[in-house]
Amino acid sequence: MDIDKNKNFSEWFNTIISDAGLADLRYNVKGFVVFRPWSVKSMKLMYAAYEAELEARGHSPALFPALIPEQNFKIEGEHVEGFTPQVFWVEQAGGNKLEERLAMRPTSETAMYQMYALWIQGLADLPLKIYQSCQVWRYETKATKPFFRSREFHWIEAHDCFATEKEARGQVREDMEMTEAVVHQQFGIPFLFFQRPEWDKFPGAVHTYAADTLMPDGRVLQLPSTHLLGTNFAKAFNVYYQDEKGEKSPVWQTCYGPAISRIYGALFSVHGDNKGLVLPFDFAPVQVVIVPILGKGQDGEAVLKYANEVLAHLLHDGIRAKVDSTPSTPGFKYNHWEMHGVPVRIEIGGREAEAKQITLVMRDAPPKTKKTISLTESIMVIRSEGAALSSRLLAKADAYFGSHLAQAKTMDELKAGLEKGCIVRVPYCSMEKTEGKGCADEIKAQLVGDVRGIKYDEKAPAHGETCVYCQKPAQHFAYVARQY
Amino acid sequence: MDIDKNKNFSEWFNTIISDAGLADLRYNVKGFVVFRPWSVKSMKLMYAAYEAELEARGHSPALFPALIPEQNFKIEGEHVEGFTPQVFWVEQAGGNKLEERLAMRPTSETAMYQMYALWIQGLADLPLKIYQSCQVWRYETKATKPFFRSREFHWIEAHDCFATEKEARGQVREDMEMTEAVVHQQFGIPFLFFQRPEWDKFPGAVHTYAADTLMPDGRVLQLPSTHLLGTNFAKAFNVYYQDEKGEKSPVWQTCYGPAISRIYGALFSVHGDNKGLVLPFDFAPVQVVIVPILGKGQDGEAVLKYANEVLAHLLHDGIRAKVDSTPSTPGFKYNHWEMHGVPVRIEIGGREAEAKQITLVMRDAPPKTKKTISLTESIMVIRSEGAALSSRLLAKADAYFGSHLAQAKTMDELKAGLEKGCIVRVPYCSMEKTEGKGCADEIKAQLVGDVRGIKYDEKAPAHGETCVYCQKPAQHFAYVARQY
Repeated sequence: MDIDKNKNFSEWFNTIISDAGLADLRYNVKGFVVFRPWSVKSMKLMYAAYEAELEARGHSPALFPALIPEQNFKIEGEHVEGFTPQVFWVEQAGGNKLEERLAMRPTSETAMYQMYALWIQGLADLPLKIYQSCQVWRYETKATKPFFRSREFHWIEAHDCFATEKEARGQVREDMEMTEAVVHQQFGIPFLFFQRPEWDKFPGAVHTYAADTLMPDGRVLQLPSTHLLGTNFAKAFNVYYQDEKGEKSPVWQTCYGPAISRIYGALFSVHGDNKGLVLPFDFAPVQVVIVPILGKGQDGEAVLKYANEVLAHLLHDGIRAKVDSTPSTPGFKYNHWEMHGVPVRIEIGGREAEAKQITLVMRDAPPKTKKTISLTESIMVIRSEGAALSSRLLAKADAYFGSHLAQAKTMDELKAGLEKGCIVRVPYCSMEKTEGKGCADEIKAQLVGDVRGIKYDEKAPAHGETCVYCQKPAQHFAYVARQY
Repeated sequence: MDIDKNKNFSEWFNTIISDAGLADLRYNVKGFVVFRPWSVKSMKLMYAAYEAELEARGHSPALFPALIPEQNFKIEGEHVEGFTPQVFWVEQAGGNKLEERLAMRPTSETAMYQMYALWIQGLADLPLKIYQSCQVWRYETKATKPFFRSREFHWIEAHDCFATEKEARGQVREDMEMTEAVVHQQFGIPFLFFQRPEWDKFPGAVHTYAADTLMPDGRVLQLPSTHLLGTNFAKAFNVYYQDEKGEKSPVWQTCYGPAISRIYGALFSVHGDNKGLVLPFDFAPVQVVIVPILGKGQDGEAVLKYANEVLAHLLHDGIRAKVDSTPSTPGFKYNHWEMHGVPVRIEIGGREAEAKQITLVMRDAPPKTKKTISLTESIMVIRSEGAALSSRLLAKADAYFGSHLAQAKTMDELKAGLEKGCIVRVPYCSMEKTEGKGCADEIKAQLVGDVRGIKYDEKAPAHGETCVYCQKPAQHFAYVARQY
């Protein structure tokens, strides 16, 4: 493929999904896609990285049912109001009408918290930190787009309970740290964490904090969000603990939801180039492809034998490698594996076979940049070059993201920033629904811009500034962007 | 706990589920359970082992939608007839009635094969070997039992396509080999593979082969099954390939389904003892628990410090270890971790701390069998003792299984065998529905015994023998057992 990702992102996106075999969009239920092996292999590695991070921070895995009785679903008022329009309902099983209809989980609060009420009695049961890796279903009314927004997606949800507000707020910070450690440092995807406006919170939450990354078409995509639930759900679901004095109090709760299938979409959109996928070394299904080059007059058998020797050497060290010994030309193979984002290509011809060497080409290297090394040093060099490639992807993504942050004080400046595909920082009147939502509606109507919230760590109010839209005194700097 | 597993299996089973925190049965949808961390951690390890085996044998992972349009579901006649009584149907989403109702997958043939028809054109696309790890939903009308039979369970399903019948039959054999390699060799669960009678096949299959293991109450439990689908589904779903001559032929298909949540149930039922769980070393959430013993007059701080030093040493080598430094007594901790099936206990007191030693107690060792070794040799000894424990579990399970195989030629002998909790080999008239099902129905009615089929590798017909029930000439030796 040769499509300019930044100019024709939509075409690039659809082409890569099809040509690299990431997903098949022809499944005959609207908004549902089939995830094919090349994306699933990477998503499995991403799941493992995220689960390891969650477990290192004290979370344990569990598995809750996919079906939630309507009576549970209706317990927390804001939650039921927010999610009801999106629920797939099961009313029949076999030939029978069910006594009570069942929701396919759009998220699991209402499945999990009734069990938490049974599990938590005293301080010894706290904190409780549980996650599940699962899929959820939401009957989206917005336009769907594979990976970014589907009616079925694959995620992790962590649901934590604490004795105190302070601990719950600490968990929200830890969730942000985990996002930094995994999404940014490991996956190489930059983002900003925003505290969402009051009118854009998770239904039932006290505060919602969400990470926004930027796509090549200048639109932001929400990555993991973490929610301070306060004691809303605890009171509704009767999750109380008894303290040393025998007094009962509701637990403080948080929940955190990294959607792996969406983050994978962000990963390939951020790192890809005009030739196709570019995958970080640790998340590539194949990290090293070995291409035997059978030139005229060369001993083909010796080259193939040596290629397999190199393969065995790499596999033995746990590197995901394969030999491409199909009958295609080397040029065809180079294009094929570049398009699939394989980080390292090893070329092996007669010379390499004889000298017990390998010639390395990195996926992101300028044309004709090759490096020939000995087989004995191959593991060390491949691992360090692989890590260096991942670092370059991160640095490049950070630079792009940083160059698309702008400031504006007027609607004209905001318009200019949005048209350049930027996330724009503006003085803004209020994050409260009654005072601030009107301006957000106008910015949406006039500039197709969305108020994403305030930066969670930017405590300084916008003294002396006036709201970019209504000109009333600004309480905050808010961030505006076009969104998916 | 102290319950005789072999005498009171049902009580033992329910107690261990509750006391070891494996599952919570109080979820308010009938036939659905919550899987708690202690079982989920082991099941994740079991999933990883199975997926590695499938991938080593050429399978790739994919993820297909959980919802299947009714029109797909109805394409293959036998299949729809077999599964329709078990389907949960989605007819509403948000406030809307769907145009077509959607089945929650009870198994994924009808979701996957329409995509296979798009993916397979020629010989270059074959073989196609794809698996997915997912959950399925079946509205069981039989009594449910946690892990063994639920309305929601967690499994892997592999669906393979080949150009020839020979390759498909080879895959069926490979599926059996994988079952041996994983379920028997790694999980330590013995079984026999039976070709099911014609009246007990997977709906739509030409032949069904299923592994039966034996529970402590003398009932068999079906573990993975593999099905030769022939070209039934291929013709129904239009999965054809074009050969070198341009001729189109339907592909030959197989499918294979290890249900991890059920196999986990078999694993703890087979290996557990009267004190609780006994887990193979590789599948224990915690492989080593370190119990500091703070005797009177001992330097408690030095003991705790050394316990954490030992912990760091083990964790560094990738051993799943933890220190139990709760305020309970050592005796309480021993019982607690024995009940949870932790394979290795390390006791550390003042003497061990001083001498840089550890005292090891294996979960399955006779009382007071201890072994004191130096810290420097601990990794090597723990790994080899862990492997030895797993081997002992396997050998013990094999011996138990082997001692519960019996032979019978008369109904009285069969009755005696079944009452001893055996799988009984009997001469049997026929595996065909028209000829053989009547005898099976009578054996079921009179002896509560189920005809499980013939051993897949036992080709020798039962010359000169007569059917255990009808006394007509026996075509086979069949196996009869009481079943879950």
